[in-house]
Amino acid sequence: MRILLTNDDGISARGIQALVNELNTIAEIYLIAPDHERSGTGHSITVFDPIKVVPANIPGIKRGWIVGGTPVDCVKLAISRLIEEKIDLVVSGINHGSNLGTDVLYSGTVSAAAEGIIMGSPSISVSLNTYRNDADFSYAALVTRRVLTSVMKAGIDKNTLLNINIPMLAPDEIKGIKITRLGTRNYNNLFEERHDPRGNTYYWLGGRVLKEKQHDDSDVYAVEQGYISITPIHLDLTNYSLMEKYHELNRNHLQAIVRREET
Amino acid sequence: MRILLTNDDGISARGIQALVNELNTIAEIYLIAPDHERSGTGHSITVFDPIKVVPANIPGIKRGWIVGGTPVDCVKLAISRLIEEKIDLVVSGINHGSNLGTDVLYSGTVSAAAEGIIMGSPSISVSLNTYRNDADFSYAALVTRRVLTSVMKAGIDKNTLLNINIPMLAPDEIKGIKITRLGTRNYNNLFEERHDPRGNTYYWLGGRVLKEKQHDDSDVYAVEQGYISITPIHLDLTNYSLMEKYHELNRNHLQAIVRREET
Repeated sequence: MRILLTNDDGISARGIQALVNELNTIAEIYLIAPDHERSGTGHSITVFDPIKVVPANIPGIKRGWIVGGTPVDCVKLAISRLIEEKIDLVVSGINHGSNLGTDVLYSGTVSAAAEGIIMGSPSISVSLNTYRNDADFSYAALVTRRVLTSVMKAGIDKNTLLNINIPMLAPDEIKGIKITRLGTRNYNNLFEERHDPRGNTYYWLGGRVLKEKQHDDSDVYAVEQGYISITPIHLDLTNYSLMEKYHELNRNHLQAIVRREET
Repeated sequence: MRILLTNDDGISARGIQALVNELNTIAEIYLIAPDHERSGTGHSITVFDPIKVVPANIPGIKRGWIVGGTPVDCVKLAISRLIEEKIDLVVSGINHGSNLGTDVLYSGTVSAAAEGIIMGSPSISVSLNTYRNDADFSYAALVTRRVLTSVMKAGIDKNTLLNINIPMLAPDEIKGIKITRLGTRNYNNLFEERHDPRGNTYYWLGGRVLKEKQHDDSDVYAVEQGYISITPIHLDLTNYSLMEKYHELNRNHLQAIVRREET
């Protein structure tokens, strides 16, 4: 098996190193990661600048690259250009901090796995629910190996990534695994206003997660309750349930818009 | 009615100016846009840097801001911090170039409208299918006004943005409006390899759209055929159709993973 590892915390992050150590026992590891942390970059790609790529010499991997670009750049470059062999699985993470609910849209970690799907590879994203600097990623890496082995054996869907979030608990405190749907994440006091020495206004993004009522089967609730959460995520954002309503509106009103003379 | 206008082509783009001219006849216009083009930034947010904001003095608007950040930063800042009044609709565009199929994930234009939805406002994104520098956005702006008037009257869904793509055709060549689902967009020869004067390797993102068989009801096909495409897009990426399969896998195999002793 060939696994492509990537992340959005950058090449030096301990989360990706934990995955190398755990997954090189079952697969050849190709590794590609941004040169520095790119959290919050979502599905952004580098369109207007050249993307620098240098080889990464890291023990335990087959080949590796450090990229002056986003997590999505990394996966796109690796699969379409840098690696000739067929990649069996993309694994993105382990992110330092959870990626739950609405927040997956902002997440470089989840977006890298989404890009894996676009490039035709089954993909998994993994996040550990902690911001502590001394966090231990080894149990999360072990869980990742066991889950991916089990899922690959059962047959993984090429169009659906699995987004795994692991609570920061001792292994014997984790209650189990839940298959979940995306919950919601909203924040208050999002921006802090400041002024530079010349009196110009600027803002820092901040904010605190609002406590909201969550569905029992949401990823947010599962991790709060001490479960490992696995959410199947696909990339067809079409709201099919509204199609008929809009077809009717189109027949009755919208069609006329194109030809109408009066403004 | 209060409309928040934004885009990813930046404050100077003609597409957003065309929307100001057309929409200020029916609404108070609040405008917030990036200081320069931010195409391909997807749903990225500025996490590690301050975001500079200066007032924009533009004829025809109520208030405006120029932002040193991404399109999503713009919408988040405007609704959560800069504007006290309730915004009735976010309109993002008119983008210089289409935003169809899989490409909506990379699009700053569509992501800005998606952020509108997250912040609780009905939202619309609009793109014109041309890269010509002398493109005329006035008919696309007129179509936008008529569509949004019609949709707002019928009752717009707060959790679903409408992604509108308009072909670059003379008004009497446009065949009509189609309600569509997202198609697929794949590219070949994605990256061009070059070497800097010191011999280091870098890549430029490029590539050409691959001609692919598209569903008759896809956005890609509609615009190719000369129709205006309107796709209802929601942000719950959960793949509900696979939930039962994974629940079963969880019961039979995954649960054991947490407690298993052997590695």
